[in-house]
Amino acid sequence: MKVLLVGDVVGKVGRRMLKSAIPIIKAENGVTLVVANGENAAGGNGLTHEIMDDLLASGVDVLSSGNHIFDKKEVLEFLDDVPALLRPLNLPLGTPGHGYVVTGIHGIPVAVINLAGRAFMPFQYDDPFAAIDRVLDSLAPEVRVILVDFHAETTSEKAALAWYLDGKVSVVVGTHTHVQTADERILPQGTAFITDLGMTGPRDSVIGVKTELVIQKLKTQMPVRFDTATGPGQFGGLIVDIDEQSGRAREVKRIFYRE
Amino acid sequence: MKVLLVGDVVGKVGRRMLKSAIPIIKAENGVTLVVANGENAAGGNGLTHEIMDDLLASGVDVLSSGNHIFDKKEVLEFLDDVPALLRPLNLPLGTPGHGYVVTGIHGIPVAVINLAGRAFMPFQYDDPFAAIDRVLDSLAPEVRVILVDFHAETTSEKAALAWYLDGKVSVVVGTHTHVQTADERILPQGTAFITDLGMTGPRDSVIGVKTELVIQKLKTQMPVRFDTATGPGQFGGLIVDIDEQSGRAREVKRIFYRE
Amino acid sequence: MKVLLVGDVVGKVGRRMLKSAIPIIKAENGVTLVVANGENAAGGNGLTHEIMDDLLASGVDVLSSGNHIFDKKEVLEFLDDVPALLRPLNLPLGTPGHGYVVTGIHGIPVAVINLAGRAFMPFQYDDPFAAIDRVLDSLAPEVRVILVDFHAETTSEKAALAWYLDGKVSVVVGTHTHVQTADERILPQGTAFITDLGMTGPRDSVIGVKTELVIQKLKTQMPVRFDTATGPGQFGGLIVDIDEQSGRAREVKRIFYRE
Amino acid sequence: MKVLLVGDVVGKVGRRMLKSAIPIIKAENGVTLVVANGENAAGGNGLTHEIMDDLLASGVDVLSSGNHIFDKKEVLEFLDDVPALLRPLNLPLGTPGHGYVVTGIHGIPVAVINLAGRAFMPFQYDDPFAAIDRVLDSLAPEVRVILVDFHAETTSEKAALAWYLDGKVSVVVGTHTHVQTADERILPQGTAFITDLGMTGPRDSVIGVKTELVIQKLKTQMPVRFDTATGPGQFGGLIVDIDEQSGRAREVKRIFYRE
Ligand SMILES: [Fe+2]
Ligand SMILES: [Fe+2]
Ligand SMILES: [Fe+2]
Ligand SMILES: [Fe+2]
Ligand SMILES: [Fe+2]
Ligand SMILES: [Fe+2]
Ligand SMILES: [Fe+2]
Ligand SMILES: [Fe+2]
Repeated sequence: MKVLLVGDVVGKVGRRMLKSAIPIIKAENGVTLVVANGENAAGGNGLTHEIMDDLLASGVDVLSSGNHIFDKKEVLEFLDDVPALLRPLNLPLGTPGHGYVVTGIHGIPVAVINLAGRAFMPFQYDDPFAAIDRVLDSLAPEVRVILVDFHAETTSEKAALAWYLDGKVSVVVGTHTHVQTADERILPQGTAFITDLGMTGPRDSVIGVKTELVIQKLKTQMPVRFDTATGPGQFGGLIVDIDEQSGRAREVKRIFYRE
Repeated sequence: MKVLLVGDVVGKVGRRMLKSAIPIIKAENGVTLVVANGENAAGGNGLTHEIMDDLLASGVDVLSSGNHIFDKKEVLEFLDDVPALLRPLNLPLGTPGHGYVVTGIHGIPVAVINLAGRAFMPFQYDDPFAAIDRVLDSLAPEVRVILVDFHAETTSEKAALAWYLDGKVSVVVGTHTHVQTADERILPQGTAFITDLGMTGPRDSVIGVKTELVIQKLKTQMPVRFDTATGPGQFGGLIVDIDEQSGRAREVKRIFYRE
Repeated sequence: MKVLLVGDVVGKVGRRMLKSAIPIIKAENGVTLVVANGENAAGGNGLTHEIMDDLLASGVDVLSSGNHIFDKKEVLEFLDDVPALLRPLNLPLGTPGHGYVVTGIHGIPVAVINLAGRAFMPFQYDDPFAAIDRVLDSLAPEVRVILVDFHAETTSEKAALAWYLDGKVSVVVGTHTHVQTADERILPQGTAFITDLGMTGPRDSVIGVKTELVIQKLKTQMPVRFDTATGPGQFGGLIVDIDEQSGRAREVKRIFYRE
Repeated sequence: MKVLLVGDVVGKVGRRMLKSAIPIIKAENGVTLVVANGENAAGGNGLTHEIMDDLLASGVDVLSSGNHIFDKKEVLEFLDDVPALLRPLNLPLGTPGHGYVVTGIHGIPVAVINLAGRAFMPFQYDDPFAAIDRVLDSLAPEVRVILVDFHAETTSEKAALAWYLDGKVSVVVGTHTHVQTADERILPQGTAFITDLGMTGPRDSVIGVKTELVIQKLKTQMPVRFDTATGPGQFGGLIVDIDEQSGRAREVKRIFYRE
């Protein structure tokens, strides 16, 4: 089976890019499952119910997230009830929502797991290694296709987790830095890995924010309100072809284009 | 003119990869100037005189660096005397060495400037925006080809500086994260930019370090000595074609391959 | 001469405590100059003109600050025009306001300098060592009484700067952590030092914020709006007796009491 | 019963100060139990078996620790076997050693629990709130005297945990910043609290390290090897009088003196 994974979808531009890309990429590549990180879908900060519905209706099967998941308060009203919307697994016990989901495509069970990193993150997460070990132990043996979105800042934490999971999951994709890396590969035991999927959002921006605002913040070291950029967009994602019997990745294809 | 920029060269494997790549890339692409970041050349930590000589003899014209520049104490014996070896410009006044150099290729002056970022870095650097503004103001007007290595952790700080310098310099390349990004482009005013050139070093590693050691550190949260990995290598770099009259980038070509 | 230095004054409770303490402490101790850190005076976040006027009218001679100085946008309207209101000196060149002031008490010139630290701070400041060196070099030789508010997180950065300035300034007080330290002393060359003056503000709080909100933030790792606590207050400060001829501290007396 | 709690004991000077203080403080105050943080006992970095033995023989009943506990490799040879030596509780499952101990004084059971904070720490710890909740739930009901050493950087994390534990434990003391705070108190539900016990170690130093080395590091932003200072010492600690029936603190007395 072929899956498409998409990184942080930022604002209106990101949603537009995602929605126009999905049918084409599905048709051209035979993709049957789409995972996208929605933490920045609502103007850069979190998700509303309306936006979630819109993304799920557009062909996204599972929405992962990260540190921005709780930015919009209203997410608490539906996070518990929507299996297709994930928050980082390694939040404290009792946190609303869930960190993974087992869904099915044409009778093949697929687990999607969402983790957050610990180095230089704005919130404090529990050990992602221990957290995913517990989930992997609990999955039914017939769940062999396992996709991991690891939302983290540093390249080293992402690579270390991917190597740790090599042979135990089908795919590890990094998100959060909003810039796609060029290092997609299949690790020796069959796990596909890319350090970061990059942002799907406004092309002429600093990780989605209006360029002049970020420059102003850095040059003045004074508080600046960050607004999401508009204008032309860019799309980034990764297609992974997975052997359904073994759960191993067979092929990996990186996608990145700008309007 | 065409220049080749290479990110963090890690250890023996990195040096081998770099040295074998330079003549081929030069010949195939008409590259006349090579800049490489040497902060990890000596076993991951800094540079010795011998290694520096070896790299410069192999076709590197300018060695930039970053937070690891002072790891080998002996660098202090020659840093002041080697114009082709840079340390971050935005270190305190009085720091040994220099943060930029103006060199010449076929009569064309080329400035190479080395900056360090401030977010999440292991040392505290002064404002990179103010520092480069001062250097740009001081350069002779005939210096139009200007290359910047911005050694920084976050994608946002790197992109913000690149957009700030758009039209003022020829190239901004990021280094430090050791993973090449896929976002090379020419910004509207003619500055070529990539968020990170990535590492030239051991292919099967976590940013150059033996994989199992980084996993051990993260899983145990106990001190672990990091050793540089060996085995097959990878090479990453960026070729930029620059108009010598205007200093604007004409074309940008990303290079990444693994053994 | 005797000076009173007061740390971060937090919200309405802090202002009330400060205003009631000043006349008593002045009368009982012969204090002739009062410096207070006002960065949290307006409900925890910055300063309004009205609150500044109120504090200055209540007997504060100089208001220092820190990372919160620009929280209230209106401060930009008067920061340049009020010599008695300081922002950290080591902000970028061109930042509104000023980082030090020379004022006079009974014909004795007194310099008050406001610096910010670099370790673990929410903004990026330039080198505080270099910044204060430049100011000290520029002061007229008759300015011998020099007071420094170093707004910083770590005990090590504060102590290092104090030892560095020993014999060059009369007093170094730390602020920002909102908890008074018990280590007041006079260093060998005559500089009085305390790592942190502590907060003047609500007694039953977590550094000024409602206790239950900070616990909620830490336990849930979800965004929580921080409100300043109310109820009984506490007052913290340091009285330093300074020899006006030499600028050396003669005696140091720590004050801390709770309602 | 009266307990004495002592913060980070740094190097030879710290051990000397501690050993000379214990018998006097015990005799003068009727203290029957001594807890000291030993993470810096061996020249600033960790603990050897010999030093541990020496401290335990000198009257320390329980040694807590923090981020430096694993600095000396040899600690792994005995950490599991010495109940009186603690490492932070909230390390990954499977970490050698233990994070709490129940000991007994004159038939009264006393639990000592060692936690580490998460903000700005050099290692990544699991949620300290959840970790201590689990231990408190597991303690036998007759264990009413409970002492917590919370090894953390920020005043806010320390205060938040103390308020959270108010009424559930007898004492919360902070360690790690090496500067004693002046805020000792008994919280409304009977828990004694101080933000930091401060260092017992060399008086004229920057948190135990030779002053000139820390200044050099900060002024140059180059690597500097930190050596522990020598010379006169200082002692800091807290005596808490605890009602053995209820586990509530009755009285708190801060101790700080310099040679
Ligand atoms: Fe994001
Ligand atoms: Fe994120
Ligand atoms: Fe590097
Ligand atoms: Fe680096
Ligand atoms: Fe403050
Ligand atoms: Fe502050
Ligand atoms: Fe310590
Ligand atoms: Fe510590």
